[in-house]
Amino acid sequence: MAKAVRVTADRIRKLEVQGARNVAIAAIKALEALAEESSAKTRKEFTKELKEAQATLFASRATEPLMRNAVRWIISQVEKSGEEKVATLTKRVSTSSSQFLKNLEASKERIAEIGSKRILNNMVVFTHCHSSTVTHLLSKAKKDGKTFEVICTETRPVFQGRITAKELLALDVKTTLIVDSAARSFMRNADLVIVGADAITSEGNVINKIGTGTIALLANEARKPFYVVSELLKFDPATVCGDYEQIEERSPDEIWKDAPEKLVIRNPAFDVTRRDFIHGVICEEGIIPPHSIKEVMHHKYSWIFE
Amino acid sequence: MAKAVRVTADRIRKLEVQGARNVAIAAIKALEALAEESSAKTRKEFTKELKEAQATLFASRATEPLMRNAVRWIISQVEKSGEEKVATLTKRVSTSSSQFLKNLEASKERIAEIGSKRILNNMVVFTHCHSSTVTHLLSKAKKDGKTFEVICTETRPVFQGRITAKELLALDVKTTLIVDSAARSFMRNADLVIVGADAITSEGNVINKIGTGTIALLANEARKPFYVVSELLKFDPATVCGDYEQIEERSPDEIWKDAPEKLVIRNPAFDVTRRDFIHGVICEEGIIPPHSIKEVMHHKYSWIFE
Amino acid sequence: MAKAVRVTADRIRKLEVQGARNVAIAAIKALEALAEESSAKTRKEFTKELKEAQATLFASRATEPLMRNAVRWIISQVEKSGEEKVATLTKRVSTSSSQFLKNLEASKERIAEIGSKRILNNMVVFTHCHSSTVTHLLSKAKKDGKTFEVICTETRPVFQGRITAKELLALDVKTTLIVDSAARSFMRNADLVIVGADAITSEGNVINKIGTGTIALLANEARKPFYVVSELLKFDPATVCGDYEQIEERSPDEIWKDAPEKLVIRNPAFDVTRRDFIHGVICEEGIIPPHSIKEVMHHKYSWIFE
Amino acid sequence: MAKAVRVTADRIRKLEVQGARNVAIAAIKALEALAEESSAKTRKEFTKELKEAQATLFASRATEPLMRNAVRWIISQVEKSGEEKVATLTKRVSTSSSQFLKNLEASKERIAEIGSKRILNNMVVFTHCHSSTVTHLLSKAKKDGKTFEVICTETRPVFQGRITAKELLALDVKTTLIVDSAARSFMRNADLVIVGADAITSEGNVINKIGTGTIALLANEARKPFYVVSELLKFDPATVCGDYEQIEERSPDEIWKDAPEKLVIRNPAFDVTRRDFIHGVICEEGIIPPHSIKEVMHHKYSWIFE
Amino acid sequence: MAKAVRVTADRIRKLEVQGARNVAIAAIKALEALAEESSAKTRKEFTKELKEAQATLFASRATEPLMRNAVRWIISQVEKSGEEKVATLTKRVSTSSSQFLKNLEASKERIAEIGSKRILNNMVVFTHCHSSTVTHLLSKAKKDGKTFEVICTETRPVFQGRITAKELLALDVKTTLIVDSAARSFMRNADLVIVGADAITSEGNVINKIGTGTIALLANEARKPFYVVSELLKFDPATVCGDYEQIEERSPDEIWKDAPEKLVIRNPAFDVTRRDFIHGVICEEGIIPPHSIKEVMHHKYSWIFE
Amino acid sequence: MAKAVRVTADRIRKLEVQGARNVAIAAIKALEALAEESSAKTRKEFTKELKEAQATLFASRATEPLMRNAVRWIISQVEKSGEEKVATLTKRVSTSSSQFLKNLEASKERIAEIGSKRILNNMVVFTHCHSSTVTHLLSKAKKDGKTFEVICTETRPVFQGRITAKELLALDVKTTLIVDSAARSFMRNADLVIVGADAITSEGNVINKIGTGTIALLANEARKPFYVVSELLKFDPATVCGDYEQIEERSPDEIWKDAPEKLVIRNPAFDVTRRDFIHGVICEEGIIPPHSIKEVMHHKYSWIFE
Repeated sequence: MAKAVRVTADRIRKLEVQGARNVAIAAIKALEALAEESSAKTRKEFTKELKEAQATLFASRATEPLMRNAVRWIISQVEKSGEEKVATLTKRVSTSSSQFLKNLEASKERIAEIGSKRILNNMVVFTHCHSSTVTHLLSKAKKDGKTFEVICTETRPVFQGRITAKELLALDVKTTLIVDSAARSFMRNADLVIVGADAITSEGNVINKIGTGTIALLANEARKPFYVVSELLKFDPATVCGDYEQIEERSPDEIWKDAPEKLVIRNPAFDVTRRDFIHGVICEEGIIPPHSIKEVMHHKYSWIFE
Repeated sequence: MAKAVRVTADRIRKLEVQGARNVAIAAIKALEALAEESSAKTRKEFTKELKEAQATLFASRATEPLMRNAVRWIISQVEKSGEEKVATLTKRVSTSSSQFLKNLEASKERIAEIGSKRILNNMVVFTHCHSSTVTHLLSKAKKDGKTFEVICTETRPVFQGRITAKELLALDVKTTLIVDSAARSFMRNADLVIVGADAITSEGNVINKIGTGTIALLANEARKPFYVVSELLKFDPATVCGDYEQIEERSPDEIWKDAPEKLVIRNPAFDVTRRDFIHGVICEEGIIPPHSIKEVMHHKYSWIFE
Repeated sequence: MAKAVRVTADRIRKLEVQGARNVAIAAIKALEALAEESSAKTRKEFTKELKEAQATLFASRATEPLMRNAVRWIISQVEKSGEEKVATLTKRVSTSSSQFLKNLEASKERIAEIGSKRILNNMVVFTHCHSSTVTHLLSKAKKDGKTFEVICTETRPVFQGRITAKELLALDVKTTLIVDSAARSFMRNADLVIVGADAITSEGNVINKIGTGTIALLANEARKPFYVVSELLKFDPATVCGDYEQIEERSPDEIWKDAPEKLVIRNPAFDVTRRDFIHGVICEEGIIPPHSIKEVMHHKYSWIFE
Repeated sequence: MAKAVRVTADRIRKLEVQGARNVAIAAIKALEALAEESSAKTRKEFTKELKEAQATLFASRATEPLMRNAVRWIISQVEKSGEEKVATLTKRVSTSSSQFLKNLEASKERIAEIGSKRILNNMVVFTHCHSSTVTHLLSKAKKDGKTFEVICTETRPVFQGRITAKELLALDVKTTLIVDSAARSFMRNADLVIVGADAITSEGNVINKIGTGTIALLANEARKPFYVVSELLKFDPATVCGDYEQIEERSPDEIWKDAPEKLVIRNPAFDVTRRDFIHGVICEEGIIPPHSIKEVMHHKYSWIFE
Repeated sequence: MAKAVRVTADRIRKLEVQGARNVAIAAIKALEALAEESSAKTRKEFTKELKEAQATLFASRATEPLMRNAVRWIISQVEKSGEEKVATLTKRVSTSSSQFLKNLEASKERIAEIGSKRILNNMVVFTHCHSSTVTHLLSKAKKDGKTFEVICTETRPVFQGRITAKELLALDVKTTLIVDSAARSFMRNADLVIVGADAITSEGNVINKIGTGTIALLANEARKPFYVVSELLKFDPATVCGDYEQIEERSPDEIWKDAPEKLVIRNPAFDVTRRDFIHGVICEEGIIPPHSIKEVMHHKYSWIFE
Repeated sequence: MAKAVRVTADRIRKLEVQGARNVAIAAIKALEALAEESSAKTRKEFTKELKEAQATLFASRATEPLMRNAVRWIISQVEKSGEEKVATLTKRVSTSSSQFLKNLEASKERIAEIGSKRILNNMVVFTHCHSSTVTHLLSKAKKDGKTFEVICTETRPVFQGRITAKELLALDVKTTLIVDSAARSFMRNADLVIVGADAITSEGNVINKIGTGTIALLANEARKPFYVVSELLKFDPATVCGDYEQIEERSPDEIWKDAPEKLVIRNPAFDVTRRDFIHGVICEEGIIPPHSIKEVMHHKYSWIFE
C-alpha cells in the first residue's frame, strides 16, 4: 500500500489531523496519492489496493462517517466505471476526489450562507469545542456585517475551545471563554447555540465532541435555540441498519498525565445529542429538523444507501 | 490587629485555605490567636479588635457563610457576656471557639453516620469537586463495610477532583475520574449523586463549586437521587433579607495562563443549584428537604436570625 | 349596622375598592366607624354588631383573606378583652385597627426593602396586573438607585396593567406594555418576574389575577426566576381545613358589553399558581419557599389557626 | 401599475383584508386585474409589470407566505410559457389564478373533511383568534352531525375571537368566550385544540396570531392534543435558506389609543409555536407531523423550491 | 411472651391483617393482651416482656411505621411512669392503648372532614389499591351530599381494588374498575387523584402500594391534582437518620402460582412517590405540602424524635 | 362465502388468533382458501366474493392494519390484472398471498437482524406483553451470541407476558416477570425498552397493548431508550385522512368474572404511545424516527395511499 495511506491513517489515529472535514480531506488525498503511486498492473490489482487502503483508513478512527462516505464514494466511482486501464482508473480517482472536495467546499459555503442569516445583530452565540464549519459560518456572518459576540467553552481535555477563541479573535469577534462546567451559568446570556457534528444517525441524533449533549440540555432548559451545523455526508448509513455509532475512547493521558496508578480514567471523545434537543440541522439543503435526515439523504445522496 | 488574622485572611483570599470547613476553622483559629495576643486594655478595645478582625475575615472571600456564622457566633458570645476583664473575654473567645469546633466536628460525624446509610452495597456514587464532608461520609461508609465505587469529575479549573480521587484511592475505594463535560455520559452508571455545599439560601438553593447545577440537572434528567451534604451553618441568613449569595469570580489565569490579550475569560467559582433538583440535604439534623431549611434553622440555630 | 360597613361592603362588591391591601384597609376603617357610631349598650350587643359587620364584609367578595384575617383579628382582640364597657371596647377596636394598619404598613416597607435587593442594575422586570405592593417595591428599588426597566401586561378585562404602567412612568421607570398573550414573546427579555398575591393556600399555592399562572409557567419554561410579593396575612387559614380558595367570577360585561345573546362569557377574576413555579414568596419574614408558608405562619401569626 | 394592485396592497397593509387565505385571494385578484388592465405591448413590458406588482404586494405585509407562494406561482406560469403575445399572457394569468384558487378551495374542503373526523361527539374544542379554515372545519363537523362545543379566546388587541364566536353561534355551536389570559383555567375543560396558521417554517414551526405559542404550551402542560389546520402552501420556502419568518409589529394604537406619551407599547402580531407542541398539521395531504413538512412539500409542491 | 403477640405478629406476616391502620390496631391490642396476661412480678420483668413483644411485632413486617410508632409510644408511656407495681403498669398500657386508638380514630375523622371538602359535585375521583382512610373520606363526602364517581384500579397482584370497588358500591357511589396498566388511558377522565400511604419519609416522599408512583407520574403528566391521605403517624422517624424505608418483597405465588421453574418473579409490595408529584398530604393537621412534614411532626408529635 | 373466511373472522373476533402478524397470516390464508373453493363463474362474481370476504375480515376486529393492508393488497393485485378467467385469478390470489407472506417473513428477519445489533452484552431489556416480532429479535440476538436478560410485565388482563416469559426461557434467556404496576420500580434496572406494535398512525404514534404508553412514559422519565419493533405495513393509511385508530374494548369478564353487578368494568385492549416517547421504529427499512413514517411509506409502499 502507498505510504501516504499508512501515514495518513497514522496521523488520523494520533489526532494529528482533527475535525471531521480535515480527516475526510486527508483520506481523500491519501487515496489520490495511492492511485498515483500505484504499481498495479490490472484493474483487479488496482481495486484490491483501494480496498486495502479503505480498510486501513476506516480502522484509523471510529466515528468518522464523512471520511468513510468520501472513501466509499470515490471507490464506488472506480467500481462503476467499466475501464480496465489502470491509468484511466487513476485518473478516475483523481477526478472523483476533486469532485468530492469541490462539493464539500460548496456545502461549506452554502451552510455558511444559510447559517449567517440566523445571526442577528447584537446576538450572543454560544458554541462548544472547535468546528471549522461553525467558524466559517461565523466568519461569513461577520463578512455580512453582523455584529455579534461569542461565548465558547475551553473543551477539555484537549482545549479545542482555545482554537475557536483564537480564530474568532482573528475575525475581530468579541469572544468569551469559560470552563466547560460554567456553561449553565452563561447559557442565560446566550441567544443562540451553534455546534458542529461528527456524525448523524438515522434516528436524527448527533454525535459530537463530549459535552455537546449537556450543552443541548442546558439550551433546552433555558429555551434557547440549538442548531447543529453539518454537511449531510456526516450521516452514517450504518446506523440505519442498527449499528450504534461508536464512541471513541481516547488516552487517559489527555486527562491526567501523572495520575495515581489505581485510578481509572475514562475519556470518551464524543457523546450523543438526541434529536429532541436540536432545533435544526443547518446543512447544504437548508435548515431541516433532524427527524427527517434519512428522508433528505434519500433524495439528495441516495447512493449512500446502496 | 493580630498578624494571625491578616495572614489567615490572606491565605483565604489566595485560596491557600480551601473548602468551607477549612476556611471556617482557619478563621476561628485566627480569632483565638488575636484574643491571645491582644494588647487591649478594656472590653471596649477588645471588642473593637474583634470587630476589625471580623471585617477583615469577611472581606477575604465572598460565599463563606460557615466562616461568617462562626465568627458572628464567637463574637456574640463575647458581647453577651457581662464581663469587663480582657483576660476573661480572651478565655471566652477560646471556649467559644472550642465549642464551635467541637460542634462542627460532631456535625461532620453525624452527617457521615446518616449519609453512610444511604450507600448500599454495589452502588456507584457520583460526586463533583472536593468536599471534606463528602469524603468523610464515604470513608464512614467504607468503615461500615459497604462496597461501592465512585465516579468523580476532574473539576476545572483547579482540578479539585484529583484530590477527591486521591483520598478515595487511599480509602481503597474503586474510583473513576472523568472530565467535567463527560458527566452526562456517565450519569447513567450512577446510582446516587452526593455533593458538598458552600452556602444554602433561604429559598433552599445550594451554592457550590461551578458545575454542580449542571450535575443536578443531569441527575434529574436520568432520575438519579441527588443529595447535598452540608452542616446547617452553611445557611446564609443574609439571603433571608433578599441578598443574593455572591458568586466569587476568580483569576482568568486559573483557566488559561497565556491567553490571547483580547480574550475575555470568565471564571465564576460557584453556581446555584435550585432546590427542585435536590432530593435532600444531609445535615446534622437528618435528611431534610431543602424547602424547609429556614424552618429547621429556626428551631436548631435561632441565634442566626438575631 | 353602621352605614359605613354597608357602604364599604358595597364598594368592595362593585370593585370600587380594589387590591387586597385596599380592601383590607377599607374593611378595617368600616369596623372603626361602626364601633364609633355604635349605639350598643352592652358588650353583648356590641359584639353582636361586630359579628354582623364581619358577615357583611365577608360576603362582599370571595378571595380576600387579608381583609378576613384583619377583621377576625380585630374582633378577636375585643373578644379576648375582659372589658364590659362599650366605650372601652370601642377604644379597643380603634387601637387594634391602628395596630393592624401599622403592622401592615411595616410589612409593606419590609417587603420593599427585601425585594429591592433582588433588583440589580440593568435588569428587566416582568409583572402582571397591578399590585400596590409590587409598585412600592419597585419604587424602593428606584430610590435605592437601581436602574431597571419593566415589562407589564395590559391585564384584560379591566386593564389594571395600565395603572401599573402609569405609576411606573411617574417613578421615571422605563416601561413597556404588551397584550397578555404576548407574554411568551417578551419573557425571553425578562430577568425576573414579580407579581402580587390575593391569597396563599396551605399547600403554598398563590391565588392572583387571572393570567398569573400562565406567566409563571412561561417564566418556568424560560428559566426565569418568579417571585410573589405578599404580606403573610394573605394566607387563608380555611385552606388548611380543605376549603378551596374561591375564584370569583365577575360580570361578562367587563369582557364584551354588546355580546351576542347566546354567547357564554366566562370571567374568572383569579387563577392558581402552583408552588412549583414560585421561586420565593417575598414577605415580611424574608424570602421563603412557598412550601413552608404554613410553618412560617405558625411561628409568626399563630393566632390565625385558633 | 394597475390601481387594483396598489389598492389591494394598501388594504392588506391596513388590515382591511385579514387572514392568510383572504390576503392571498385578494392578491391573486389584483394580479388578474393588473393583467386585464395592462397596456403592456410586449412580453417584456408585461413581465416587468407583474414583477413590480409582486414587489408591491410582497411589501404590503410580512408573514404572508400563502400570498407570496400564490403570486410566485402565477408569475412563474407566465414565465414558463413561451408565448410572446400579451393577450395570451393575460389569459395565462387568468387561468393560473383560477387554478390556484380552485386548488385552494379544494384544499380547504379536504382539510375540513379530514379535520371533521377528529371531532367526536361531546368534545370541547379550544381555539384562538379567527381562522376561516378552522371555522370551515367546524362547520363541516356540524354538518357531519357532530355535537360539540367550542371555547374561544377574545384575542386581543383586535378581538378576532369575537368573529369566531359569531360564526360559531351562527352554526348553532355552543360557544364560550374568555379573555386570553384565562386560557390556562379553561384548558382543563378542553378535549382538543385547533388553530390556524399564517406560516410554516422548514423546521416545522408554525407562525400564527400572537398567543398561539402560549396556547400550545398550555395544551402540552395539560396533555391535550394540539392541531394546526393549514394549507401546505403556507410553508415559507425562504425559511429553508435560513431566513427568519418576520414577525410583523403593528400599531400601538390597537392596544391603547390614549396611552401616556413615554410608554413603550409593543404589538407583535404573531408568535412562533415550536413543532414539539404540535400533534399534527391537518393539511390537504392528511394529518402529518410538522417535522416532515419540508419532505411533504418536496413531493407535493416541488416547484416551491425552484 | 403472650400468645396474642405471637399470633398477631403471625397474622401480620401472613397478610391476614392488612392496611397500616389495621396492623397498628392489631399490634396495640396484642400489647394490651400481653399486659393483661403477664405473669411478670417486677417492673423490670414487665418491661422486658414489652420489649420482646416490640421486637416480635417489628419483625413481622417491614414498612409499618404507624404500628411501630404506636408500639413505641405505648411502651414509652410505661417507661416514663415511675410506677413499680405491675398492676399499675398494666393499667398504663391499657389507658395508653385506648388513648392512641382514640387519637387515631379522631385523626381519621378529621382527615375525612378535610378531604371531603376537596370533593366537588360531579367530580371523578381516581384511586389505587384499598385504603380505609380513603374510603372513609369518600364515605364522608357522600354523607355531605356530594355527587361524584370513582375510577379504581384492580391493583395486582392481590386485587385490593376489588375491595375498594365493593365498599364504594355499598356507599352507592358509581364506580369503574380498570386494570392497572389502563390508568393512563383513564387519567384524562379524572378530576382528582386520592391515595393512601403506608409510610412517609423525612424527605416528604410517600411509600404506598406498588403502582402508586406511576399513578402520581400520570396525574402529573395530565395536570391532575394528586393527594395523599394519611395520619401523620405514618411518618417514619428512622428516615430522618438516613435509613431507607424498606420495601417488602412478597411471595412470587401471589403473581403466578404455577410459574416455570427458572422464571424469576419479583414482587415488591410498595413503591416510592416523590414529594414533587404530591399536591398535598391530607392529614389531621390539615392539607400540607409533603416538603414540610418533618416540621409539622416537630410541633405536633415531637416525642417521635426522642 | 367460503367457510374458511367466516371461521377465520370468528377466530379473530374471539381472540383465538392473536398478534397482528398471526391475524394477518390467518386472513391471507382464508383468502387463499376462498379463492380455491370459489364456485364463481366470472371475474365479476369472483371479485364480489373477495370483497365480501374483505368486509367480513375487516369487521372481525378493529386495530388490525397489517391484516387490512394484506387483504387490500391481495385484492388489488386481482383487480389490477386484466385477466377474466377465474382459474387465473385464483392463481393470482395464491401467488400474491405467497408473495405477501414471503415479504412479511423477510421483514421479520430484517427487523431481527437490525434490532439484534441494538442488544449489547450484559444489557437488561424491558418488554411488555407478547410480540412475536420482539421475541424473534431477541432470539436472533441470542443466536448472535449476545448475553442479556429480560424483564417482562405479566400484562393483565390476559397475561400475555407469561407467553413471552416462556418463550424467552426456552431460548435460555434469564427472564424476570413483574406485575404491570411494578414497571416504574424496575425501569431503573433496564438499559433498553423494546415493544411491538399493533398499528402506527400518520402522526407517528403507535397503538399497542394497553400499558405501552405508560411504559414509554416511564422509559422517558428514566432516560432509557424506547424502541418499537414493527413491520411498516402496520401503518394505518386511514389515519392520514383523519380517522382515529379505534381502540377495541374487550369483555369485562377478562378482568373480573364474578364482579358485582353494578360495577362498571372498562377493558380497552390498546393505548396510544406518542411519537415523542419513541426513540426509533425498528422496521424493514432500518431504524427510523416515527415522525417520518408516512414519508417512508411513500417511497417503500406507495400503493397503500391509492
